[in-house]
Amino acid sequence: MSQTPLLLALDLTGTFAFGLNGALTAVRAVRLDLVGVITLGMMTALGGGIIRDVLIGSLPPATFNDVLYLGVAAAGALTAFFLSVELERFTGLITIFDAVGLGVFSVTGASKALEYGLGGVQAVLLGALTAVGGGTVRDMAIRQVPSVLTSDFYAVPALIGAALTVVAVSTEVHGVVTALLAAAVCFGIRMLGVRYNLRVPGTPRNRFASGGSGRVRRWWRRNRRGR
Amino acid sequence: MSQTPLLLALDLTGTFAFGLNGALTAVRAVRLDLVGVITLGMMTALGGGIIRDVLIGSLPPATFNDVLYLGVAAAGALTAFFLSVELERFTGLITIFDAVGLGVFSVTGASKALEYGLGGVQAVLLGALTAVGGGTVRDMAIRQVPSVLTSDFYAVPALIGAALTVVAVSTEVHGVVTALLAAAVCFGIRMLGVRYNLRVPGTPRNRFASGGSGRVRRWWRRNRRGR
Amino acid sequence: MSQTPLLLALDLTGTFAFGLNGALTAVRAVRLDLVGVITLGMMTALGGGIIRDVLIGSLPPATFNDVLYLGVAAAGALTAFFLSVELERFTGLITIFDAVGLGVFSVTGASKALEYGLGGVQAVLLGALTAVGGGTVRDMAIRQVPSVLTSDFYAVPALIGAALTVVAVSTEVHGVVTALLAAAVCFGIRMLGVRYNLRVPGTPRNRFASGGSGRVRRWWRRNRRGR
Repeated sequence: MSQTPLLLALDLTGTFAFGLNGALTAVRAVRLDLVGVITLGMMTALGGGIIRDVLIGSLPPATFNDVLYLGVAAAGALTAFFLSVELERFTGLITIFDAVGLGVFSVTGASKALEYGLGGVQAVLLGALTAVGGGTVRDMAIRQVPSVLTSDFYAVPALIGAALTVVAVSTEVHGVVTALLAAAVCFGIRMLGVRYNLRVPGTPRNRFASGGSGRVRRWWRRNRRGR
Repeated sequence: MSQTPLLLALDLTGTFAFGLNGALTAVRAVRLDLVGVITLGMMTALGGGIIRDVLIGSLPPATFNDVLYLGVAAAGALTAFFLSVELERFTGLITIFDAVGLGVFSVTGASKALEYGLGGVQAVLLGALTAVGGGTVRDMAIRQVPSVLTSDFYAVPALIGAALTVVAVSTEVHGVVTALLAAAVCFGIRMLGVRYNLRVPGTPRNRFASGGSGRVRRWWRRNRRGR
Repeated sequence: MSQTPLLLALDLTGTFAFGLNGALTAVRAVRLDLVGVITLGMMTALGGGIIRDVLIGSLPPATFNDVLYLGVAAAGALTAFFLSVELERFTGLITIFDAVGLGVFSVTGASKALEYGLGGVQAVLLGALTAVGGGTVRDMAIRQVPSVLTSDFYAVPALIGAALTVVAVSTEVHGVVTALLAAAVCFGIRMLGVRYNLRVPGTPRNRFASGGSGRVRRWWRRNRRGR
């Protein structure tokens, strides 16, 4: 099947999810007003795709070529704004929408990078960058250290989703099913990481406390001495 | 008339105003030294135009093609640095220069986006992005939440200035007069917003306090129930 | 000799040094975990070059065309992560690696800008931007005011290294020797600035304290009155 409609549908799903997520973040964490909420929602929704398109040289970015992106991002942000009281009942919705965007954008980022002729390793990285880009822009705008730096299971699932996509494309089995599967695996790992508080080795118990990556380093030094 | 000299003149005006503004911000708020003041001035002055040119794929950005931009931005920053004692008498000058840059860049951003073949809606957004880009870079560099997120009447006048430009171009009446008019309308709305402390509905009394966008949402829920 | 292998070798040296530096910063200052350390290392290592390539329109950036960059940046970050206990003995290593990256990237940034047809002044600025870009991304991600704004002898040596490169290229003596010389001069000035705490006139004794750029301005006013 042709890539383009699949890519577009997935991209719009991620755009809507990140629009909701960014706007909910603005409403809850920072209590911005209407314009601020929509702006943060759109920055979160469109940031990752714009970074991807700038880096592969697909300019102007898809976001600006197709008015659908702008509309969907704004719709996500407005939905979050007007339904935020109702949405507050469902704790964890911010995290879920973020994980949906992460999964979907890791697939579209990697696919589009391959389409533009980048190598496999680079496509994996660009996929992950597309996935974490929107959230990073969101965090920096409201002066938080980006999730990608503080939460292990933010970058890792994005890299896995992108890697699965590259494998599917290179083995020529890529299509709707594998794309949805790769996005679902990324989403699932992210949600498991949040649910069970998974960490890569060496993570400090509390962020930014001392001891940081000490455990891995200590483990490494012990093993090296033992040898 | 040809667009290019008009665009250039307006772009340079905005560059100078934002250079002054960024440097004054650095001198007053953060007390940076000479290099820091010039750097922040140039980042503020050139940030919006660079973002615009990257997104429409006009690379290298006008800023780097024409040494005039660099000179004018540096001149604005140096003026602010050496005259800052004199300029301190006029409170509100930072805001005025910011509003001038906002007005002018909303027009040039929208015009250039149309020239590069973008659609009307996208040109409006790109015009606003050009206008708020420099100030957003400035705010993030000195660790403030960007004005565009916290102040309603920052994004709104930029969107209006860009929209007027798109209307003028599409009705083929665009020229020096309409460009200056659109910039002036944007400038005027921004200054009125600052002067009378205008807000879009749902703005919290004090930034980041609770209650945020509660008023619009409460109003929305009441109306929905009433129906 | 051909520019390209020289540019590549220097670029990779800077990439490795900035990868080490960014990862050490993450381990020491912020105590991020493994994924965070590698991410910050790679952002620091690749940020400057990506900004350069986006601005000159060389897309996708060299970073994504040649898998070597990714490998070298990751190697630098991993080295810092696993040897950080050993590296902690050598205080000042963070500064030294930063200065190496600064020197090397000021040369490669300016050279590549000239290759892509930019003018001399712009090439100097783009060289400096390449050099300070990675560190600025690093500082903004961990919520510090970027070095380029607070430390005089960060931007100045980068500008000098880039200017020497432009002079060497325009007098057609550019080659391995002049490139290494220009990088070494930038490195040396940066290290002297750190060692002897050099400042451009008007620097406040303590950052962000009042008095900021007052000394230059007072000197300026006195001289102007005297005239």
